[in-house]
Amino acid sequence: MEQLFSYNRLLLFTQQVFKKIGCPEQDALLAAKVLLSADLRGIDSHGVARLNGYVRLWEAKRANAQPAVRIIHETPSTAVVDGDSGLGLVVAPFAMDIAIQKAKEVGTGWVSVQNSNHFGIAAFHAQKAVEQDMIGIAMTNASALVAPTFSIERLLGTNPICVAIPAGSEPPFVADLATTTAANGKLEILQRKNQNAPEGWIQDKDGNISTNPHELKAGGALLPLGGDRDHGSHKGYALGAIVDIFSGVLSGANYGPWVPPFPAYIAMPEDMPGKGIGHFFGAMRIDAFRPAAAFKKNMDKWIERFRSAKTVEGQEQVLIPGDPEREMAAERLTRGIPLLPAVAKDLQFLAEKFDLSLS
Amino acid sequence: MEQLFSYNRLLLFTQQVFKKIGCPEQDALLAAKVLLSADLRGIDSHGVARLNGYVRLWEAKRANAQPAVRIIHETPSTAVVDGDSGLGLVVAPFAMDIAIQKAKEVGTGWVSVQNSNHFGIAAFHAQKAVEQDMIGIAMTNASALVAPTFSIERLLGTNPICVAIPAGSEPPFVADLATTTAANGKLEILQRKNQNAPEGWIQDKDGNISTNPHELKAGGALLPLGGDRDHGSHKGYALGAIVDIFSGVLSGANYGPWVPPFPAYIAMPEDMPGKGIGHFFGAMRIDAFRPAAAFKKNMDKWIERFRSAKTVEGQEQVLIPGDPEREMAAERLTRGIPLLPAVAKDLQFLAEKFDLSLS
Repeated sequence: MEQLFSYNRLLLFTQQVFKKIGCPEQDALLAAKVLLSADLRGIDSHGVARLNGYVRLWEAKRANAQPAVRIIHETPSTAVVDGDSGLGLVVAPFAMDIAIQKAKEVGTGWVSVQNSNHFGIAAFHAQKAVEQDMIGIAMTNASALVAPTFSIERLLGTNPICVAIPAGSEPPFVADLATTTAANGKLEILQRKNQNAPEGWIQDKDGNISTNPHELKAGGALLPLGGDRDHGSHKGYALGAIVDIFSGVLSGANYGPWVPPFPAYIAMPEDMPGKGIGHFFGAMRIDAFRPAAAFKKNMDKWIERFRSAKTVEGQEQVLIPGDPEREMAAERLTRGIPLLPAVAKDLQFLAEKFDLSLS
Repeated sequence: MEQLFSYNRLLLFTQQVFKKIGCPEQDALLAAKVLLSADLRGIDSHGVARLNGYVRLWEAKRANAQPAVRIIHETPSTAVVDGDSGLGLVVAPFAMDIAIQKAKEVGTGWVSVQNSNHFGIAAFHAQKAVEQDMIGIAMTNASALVAPTFSIERLLGTNPICVAIPAGSEPPFVADLATTTAANGKLEILQRKNQNAPEGWIQDKDGNISTNPHELKAGGALLPLGGDRDHGSHKGYALGAIVDIFSGVLSGANYGPWVPPFPAYIAMPEDMPGKGIGHFFGAMRIDAFRPAAAFKKNMDKWIERFRSAKTVEGQEQVLIPGDPEREMAAERLTRGIPLLPAVAKDLQFLAEKFDLSLS
């Protein structure tokens, strides 16, 4: 049975946990907001379900609760940020703010980040730009779970890309996608329910097609968007690779199979070529291209045309990227956020550990 | 039977044809080089097979052979270019050069283009940046052939994205991908051979799964990368949409179902909201992020690690994006470019029309 928690309750609790591990007041609130934005939007795998994981990273001295995040190189439109092993939940907003500031000054801003940790969901960061009449872009690499086309080795993370674009009277266009056929969170749901996955999501340790979601723990791999060569998996692989290079190679972070794992009990890779995890952010001022009002009017027209397209039988509407998550957020703000028993138990464990109250 | 033509022979002929329709000497050579770069790389659908199509666009007064291409808006890191209905083959290099120039000045450059026509292959344009130790990005929208997830209407083009990234001793990473499961050119091959397509490439006019490549001419549609919802087609749809918005909405070009068709015999869409076709280009100076030598050393390491990954049985090697096209180009430069009888006949038709010699 799922248990319902109010957004405010979970936000306060999460902030308190981050404070207990030593995060400054404002950082703790920010990190909590980023984490909870995943739960609100229905991306349960990236929300409070990971809170204990962040605590363990801190305990293992892989995450720094009081980082001195700083710019280590810059030009008028670019910067590289060193996250000082901080929580990505705090490092990422710092970097995105720099991208936005540079866009204000010279039209666009592009920031690559080294020495960070997992940053929650990409959409939180990209959407910051939208509030400023900018297009926002956020991506990150992650530890390797994905086998490139023809490989049996896991060399890429699920490496998400988010692009958030403002509209006028319509809500913004927010596409936030893992560059795999299915996000790891979806596989975890199947694992818990002992259900099979569709073909094209995973392969076993020898690279054979598999529908068994447990193969991932037996040396198998997630597959790039496309699934197999005939269905364009080389494109999903290329997209994941671009995210890895922009986030890892361009910043001086780790990349490919050397990206540090999120679970603190997994040993760090050997001979790491960079520092921590890498992210990449972009902000493009709309009026660096055309007047914002004209752009938004045309975005409304774009959205309305797509939303009103004739659908295949049985489907109500063509969705605009961001629609399902926005509807979910509205519902969960009112109704509360449902947590699986295992997640609620994890939070209860943290409450006892840090002498906090969850209820 | 395919006929072999030398690269230089086809280049000269193509340049002569462009001169005959009124292109200035240098524009004709540039347009020919861009077009031929597709044939060299094995993207036969985008090369001289389209030459007669460009001539017809000119005859229909939809393409301007002597355009006054110009910047209509700019900031230090951005510009919008009006292509004056010119050939995309000429407009795109103009715009890419501006992106590169701005990257030299402020770290990155981003150019959105309105009022253009088809620009050949994206890789030609993105690779210009690589020669300057920059990452190059090129994308374009195109007339609607693709149905978004759940739609039976065709609302997006195959909207390709190319990202080209320099390496050190390794050749550059060049990912050039249509945001569909399969490029339209691959479908055309199946149509000619009367062979079935794999599931996930196309749907029929009612949105049913189909393997019949002729369905596209009967109101069917290409499918976004992923194929169906279970396999992530909403991600391919989102990527195609991003290309459309960056290229069309940001520049003031047409977008979605209003993008002008390439075949001159197809009527223009009604109530077009913008001008011509749109493109989007980016250039990021490597040393705006970190020293180029350090970046390239790590790119070499990235490429070598991926190339040496253990493969599934029956596959020789994990490929790096750009490998197959580079090998094809080397072979065709030496051996010649094979043209299908229908394409050779098209060129012969142009030779007679313009009093030129093809042999």
